[in-house]
Amino acid sequence: MSRYWSPIVKDLQPYVPGEQPKLNKLTKLNTNENPYGPSPKALAAMREVLGDGLRLYPDPNADSLRGCIAEYYQLDADQVFVGNGSDEVLAHVFHALFQHGKPLLFPDITYSFYPVYCKLYGIPCEAIPLDEDFAIQVADYTGINGGIIFPNPNAPTGRLLALADIRRLLEVNNETVVVIDEAYVDFGGESAVTLVNDYPNLLVIQTLSKSRSLAGLRVGLAVGHRELIEALERVKNSFNSYPLDRVALAGAEAAIRDEAYFRECCDRVIADREQLRSELNTRGFDVLPSAANFLFCEHRSEAAADIAAALRADGVIVRHFNQRRIDNFLRITVGTVEQNQLLLESLDRFFGA
Amino acid sequence: MSRYWSPIVKDLQPYVPGEQPKLNKLTKLNTNENPYGPSPKALAAMREVLGDGLRLYPDPNADSLRGCIAEYYQLDADQVFVGNGSDEVLAHVFHALFQHGKPLLFPDITYSFYPVYCKLYGIPCEAIPLDEDFAIQVADYTGINGGIIFPNPNAPTGRLLALADIRRLLEVNNETVVVIDEAYVDFGGESAVTLVNDYPNLLVIQTLSKSRSLAGLRVGLAVGHRELIEALERVKNSFNSYPLDRVALAGAEAAIRDEAYFRECCDRVIADREQLRSELNTRGFDVLPSAANFLFCEHRSEAAADIAAALRADGVIVRHFNQRRIDNFLRITVGTVEQNQLLLESLDRFFGA
Repeated sequence: MSRYWSPIVKDLQPYVPGEQPKLNKLTKLNTNENPYGPSPKALAAMREVLGDGLRLYPDPNADSLRGCIAEYYQLDADQVFVGNGSDEVLAHVFHALFQHGKPLLFPDITYSFYPVYCKLYGIPCEAIPLDEDFAIQVADYTGINGGIIFPNPNAPTGRLLALADIRRLLEVNNETVVVIDEAYVDFGGESAVTLVNDYPNLLVIQTLSKSRSLAGLRVGLAVGHRELIEALERVKNSFNSYPLDRVALAGAEAAIRDEAYFRECCDRVIADREQLRSELNTRGFDVLPSAANFLFCEHRSEAAADIAAALRADGVIVRHFNQRRIDNFLRITVGTVEQNQLLLESLDRFFGA
Repeated sequence: MSRYWSPIVKDLQPYVPGEQPKLNKLTKLNTNENPYGPSPKALAAMREVLGDGLRLYPDPNADSLRGCIAEYYQLDADQVFVGNGSDEVLAHVFHALFQHGKPLLFPDITYSFYPVYCKLYGIPCEAIPLDEDFAIQVADYTGINGGIIFPNPNAPTGRLLALADIRRLLEVNNETVVVIDEAYVDFGGESAVTLVNDYPNLLVIQTLSKSRSLAGLRVGLAVGHRELIEALERVKNSFNSYPLDRVALAGAEAAIRDEAYFRECCDRVIADREQLRSELNTRGFDVLPSAANFLFCEHRSEAAADIAAALRADGVIVRHFNQRRIDNFLRITVGTVEQNQLLLESLDRFFGA
């Protein structure tokens, strides 16, 4: 450690994102990107702002985009916060709403960025085990806490918690903020956004990276009570006045307005997911129920690490987590029909079918 | 204050950026944007990435852009850090390198975001008065400190500190990090980047918002010893894996490679600045020497607030800071020849010439 570092830097254990290979030949089923490109209307809107106007700062308050999201969800603009990807939004959430000296609760198997944020902001945390079927049991989240967070559907499991369960959780936990991270909700879940007017401590996070096919553009959002949003705005405006560039603002708004394209892509991914599930079952995998754009599965005889290595040798990359309880699982992003076929063919070669 | 807020949120005093008016008719000389658009090559590079590829995450390490910057400055890529505008880079610098419990030193008249970051990260700070001529005296920065930061040229004064003075400062202050914030250096300063291999505690910050005409794209960078860069990477990777989107990565790299366009724009701004200075002198202003793309000036008889209001009524906006020592000054961005002419005509009307 350098003597010039702030003391906290030494102990940080940065998040390690899935590989972003520089080779285009690979069949990339490892980071849950949408297999279909962004809305053509979003691309057109972005094209339009590529000009001399880029010499000017963007709107620091992102009023137009926030208004568009508010309209989409029939809320007020001051119930909406936007940021440079949902990871940035989450970072501000941890900073602004979870520093209470009491443990933040999240599942033991979940998005691995949560404990990283806790380290960064000095927040104690407690991992609550998922049940045997890798489901969240809300009864386990009633202890003293400084906040609760989990993705719904959860990642990397893909399992969905019903809205009625989230409501139950909010009824018994009203002293601290409950964050539902809905990165994957559009692939089969029901959004908790409909509950934000009922619960002042509910914050819902979404991203345009998955269902809107804009991982490369970095836009995320939070929806909740205006007091929660104000806390996020204060931290954001003490950090970076302009987190969203002009291209991202234009593209995000147009993507949200193109409902037809969005629905069509989600429907295709959902249909292909169920098809892929059935093919994986046939090949000896136990596959968890998924409401996301990926499948979490364990083979009944072969080791996950071996399967991942064999796929990799064939140019197909999936995600394997070297972590207790799930080290024999693979998380496989639902690709195009062609990509899924390449995956299955590689599996067939491995299994010697 | 909401009971759901982290305690620090209550006392935050967010930075207030200059107005970004939604009307295009205004002559906008208030936030130091470049009057000329971005490099046509940068626009072309951005146009090229607007396609299906946006469904994929960008390179989390921005290897290509960092390599390009390293090549530009003849350094290694691990001496370069990039972020979502230099404001984000600065935020990480405060978090990663200034939390030592000792006061951070910066000028009393300077970029007003610095004390905001200090609040956000709980860093004590001490404002060191500029001398009577609004110049930084390095002899004033020798006390016990947890770091030193200032823009060079300084903002909003525009005054440049010579590289020899920065070297002097680094010779006497080698226990803590010295950050030179070079947002405006390309308009007449000499960059301290040439010193980073001599001083392991020197970090230089730059932005593509001013001299590269890309305020709307949000790209900033830091250059320094690899140990300083590693601290920034650790914090960044504990905050947001992908701060730069695919469009920003492509546009930034192409902008940096288009040296001819960059030089041409800077030269025009510098020439027009000196022309504008002379015109302001003629109209009764005392103008500080400027190595930036703005002029900081005080009228010999009329109050700054009155002049700003009269300009505003004519659709010309400049920046007036309601702050001790400088409340009778105006900061005027150098515009195009036409914009500068509109400013002068409005002043002539106000002065009844």
